[in-house]
Amino acid sequence: MQRYFVKHTLQVGQTITTTPDLYKHAITVMRLAINNEVELVDDTQHVFLGKLITDDKTTHQAQLLITADITKVVEMPIDITIACGIPKGDKAETIVQKGTQLGAKRFLFLNTVYSVAKWIGNKQTKKQARLQKIAFEAAQQAHRTFVPEVQVLTDFEQLLHYPATQKLVAYEESAKQGETAQLVKTFTAMQPQQSLLAFFGPEGGIAPQEIAQLQANQFKLAGLGPRILRAETAPLYLLAAASYHFELRH
Amino acid sequence: MQRYFVKHTLQVGQTITTTPDLYKHAITVMRLAINNEVELVDDTQHVFLGKLITDDKTTHQAQLLITADITKVVEMPIDITIACGIPKGDKAETIVQKGTQLGAKRFLFLNTVYSVAKWIGNKQTKKQARLQKIAFEAAQQAHRTFVPEVQVLTDFEQLLHYPATQKLVAYEESAKQGETAQLVKTFTAMQPQQSLLAFFGPEGGIAPQEIAQLQANQFKLAGLGPRILRAETAPLYLLAAASYHFELRH
Repeated sequence: MQRYFVKHTLQVGQTITTTPDLYKHAITVMRLAINNEVELVDDTQHVFLGKLITDDKTTHQAQLLITADITKVVEMPIDITIACGIPKGDKAETIVQKGTQLGAKRFLFLNTVYSVAKWIGNKQTKKQARLQKIAFEAAQQAHRTFVPEVQVLTDFEQLLHYPATQKLVAYEESAKQGETAQLVKTFTAMQPQQSLLAFFGPEGGIAPQEIAQLQANQFKLAGLGPRILRAETAPLYLLAAASYHFELRH
Repeated sequence: MQRYFVKHTLQVGQTITTTPDLYKHAITVMRLAINNEVELVDDTQHVFLGKLITDDKTTHQAQLLITADITKVVEMPIDITIACGIPKGDKAETIVQKGTQLGAKRFLFLNTVYSVAKWIGNKQTKKQARLQKIAFEAAQQAHRTFVPEVQVLTDFEQLLHYPATQKLVAYEESAKQGETAQLVKTFTAMQPQQSLLAFFGPEGGIAPQEIAQLQANQFKLAGLGPRILRAETAPLYLLAAASYHFELRH
């Protein structure tokens, strides 16, 4: 069933009028018919069934009756922020789209020493808006109740002082040296609702001075297995491993 | 350091002559200079250092001296085959490229009931060759010692009888019904060298008659967490979870 986010609070028995966007997608594109239902997620992350009860094709306005609360837990028990040195091409889009499916709470992008692509001025605003839209659409498709937030940080200092219970850096050199314990150790130490900030370098990797600064600010170096992962694959590995650890193991 | 596959067996002290492909990439593109080194993986999956000792720029022939055996374990301890209903667009490429980085041993693609894209006749051969090339390049970049094999199956029967110690189907309906135990149970039951065959549907999902046939042939239904994953994300989730389970946990 199609899922949509609404920007207010819903309750069972209420009737709501469609916004132009909702009308366009649910009725014009997806051809929702009278008495058919969609899922609606409200601003408190509750999920409801909404049944189409009126549809005025001339004014493009329709009404949905909220028939049931079908909320269930689909959000990761820990709050994961994925921070990335700006990657090349459309890799930021891949990270946000698939990272949203895999349960990330927030994405941070920032220029780093070895970033080849740079987002400056106007491009930074455009990229942020585009990535936020991708997160919104991916959250709907993945049936999430939370839309991850996308931010572009102004500098490395902001990353260093970003608040989190635990902080990791995915470091290729650690992986090469056979570091295999840190990720498990970090996950095992975490309680529900706590936050993890994980930083990933761009294609060129992380500069030694950046590693030193990260380590001086409580970031721990973690290997993600013995193979070399690309810039856009490493965050997906971490998120899938977190889901396996927190959502599948009992 | 750049890594290349060679099609014969190497030993320390030996001198080898570059193939045209190796010359082109290592010397023309990557500008390897005399006394610089590359990694060479031989046909027994051993990894060696090769030092450039001669380079004839006119004949485009160069010699590498094999200086050391630097083999270490980079292959997943269990043998994972990813089988996919043919997905749309370039998603098969994404699955093979990122799945190779994440340690898959083999990729199978096949037409299924809900496949929108179909690979028929000539297209099947072309796709297989293209995907095999992607696996080869991704294996080099990921510093693997094994190049995953890509096959296109002729029918669903072939999948049903494909040999494996354990067989799973990633089933969206299982995930929706909160199935969270099967993946952990399967991984926990497996010993090194055993094989896992995991089947993933295309965008449209898996038809009820296909699920029935799979279940009748020892495939177990597994959920991959509470969010709805896209066709190309689900195999990556399984591989990352397997790496976390078998390569990081102790």
